[in-house]
Amino acid sequence: MHVIICAGGPEEEVAERDVLLSFDDAVFIGADHGTIYLLDKGIIPTMAVGDFDSLTIEEWQRVEREVKTIERHEPEKDETDTELAIIRALEMKPQKITVTGATGGRLDHYESNLHLVYRLQKEAPNCSIRLMNKTNEVRFILPGTSRLPYDQRYKYMSFFAFGRDVPDVTLKGVAYETHSELVQMGTTRFTSNEVISASATVSFSEGALLMIRSND
Amino acid sequence: MHVIICAGGPEEEVAERDVLLSFDDAVFIGADHGTIYLLDKGIIPTMAVGDFDSLTIEEWQRVEREVKTIERHEPEKDETDTELAIIRALEMKPQKITVTGATGGRLDHYESNLHLVYRLQKEAPNCSIRLMNKTNEVRFILPGTSRLPYDQRYKYMSFFAFGRDVPDVTLKGVAYETHSELVQMGTTRFTSNEVISASATVSFSEGALLMIRSND
Repeated sequence: MHVIICAGGPEEEVAERDVLLSFDDAVFIGADHGTIYLLDKGIIPTMAVGDFDSLTIEEWQRVEREVKTIERHEPEKDETDTELAIIRALEMKPQKITVTGATGGRLDHYESNLHLVYRLQKEAPNCSIRLMNKTNEVRFILPGTSRLPYDQRYKYMSFFAFGRDVPDVTLKGVAYETHSELVQMGTTRFTSNEVISASATVSFSEGALLMIRSND
Repeated sequence: MHVIICAGGPEEEVAERDVLLSFDDAVFIGADHGTIYLLDKGIIPTMAVGDFDSLTIEEWQRVEREVKTIERHEPEKDETDTELAIIRALEMKPQKITVTGATGGRLDHYESNLHLVYRLQKEAPNCSIRLMNKTNEVRFILPGTSRLPYDQRYKYMSFFAFGRDVPDVTLKGVAYETHSELVQMGTTRFTSNEVISASATVSFSEGALLMIRSND
């Protein structure tokens, strides 16, 4: 199962309808105002989660009318709407979670979502969690060997240390291969690589890499 | 002196003309395509730096005609245009560097700029370096006590650990004060605070905090 969450970031940060509908075995969750973005695209989410504070009365009535399962929270909660939605998604034991509408506008929200995904990805290593907008895909790679399939939507692949330096990083199947190199905090050397085979791999044994795939 | 660098991120990521012209003692540097954004705003930079690969012939002729000092690099250089521009700016020994046009579009470019500023801010602790777009300001706070003046442009102030957990963080003069708290990688607890006095302060003794000020 692949759970797709649409969060309430500015609408231009939401991935295209065709992309959202292209994934197999997909279940949709609307996080707060993201529920409206999904309904506007003709996608009825299985569940809507949030405080729905930012919705007009008309929008709220539409959510009540169209979405079967609604989990409405108090505005004064500890978790963000996106966090609650990812936690609900993880309970469904999916192989993959994609969060869209979570990258732009307020950069504190984007950074907060990065830290949230970092924490939850470590807690649920068997489920791949990623953020996605129209031209970027963002996720964390944990220790081990990870396969990175060629994806025609993204020309570039970049890696950053997150939380600490990451030693012994080996990259294969990309334009600039590395062998046992140190990815340090503050370095920009591991950006704009390109996958040149059917599937690249990245291997390392400790820490976590932030991987960003992007297009112009 | 305050050096303002305009980088080549998408034009909608460049701060407003009025804001750019509101700073005292400002000197402008155009980084690659950012030079055109400045000229389009009627601001003639003191210097233009970059490979200028993305410029049309007409745009390049305009740069040659209007900008006195141009530093043209080979496209196959190790540094990004933004990096070269910040290094030139630091040579002018300013109190402050503001980089605009460096936050959006390709998220790998934004992340790369974050790491770049993190590294250069540690190398030049006496110069405050920040990224700025229309609704966000991003910078790193180093150990010690830093004054954070009230700024009407930004309602929210958020802090994130960058590179490692940051212990003993004390925040004063904000809506949610903290006393000697741990800001951990993966936590989103220190977001959306608000400066409620003329000037807030943040104090800690090791590590670095990523501070993001933002508006809706």
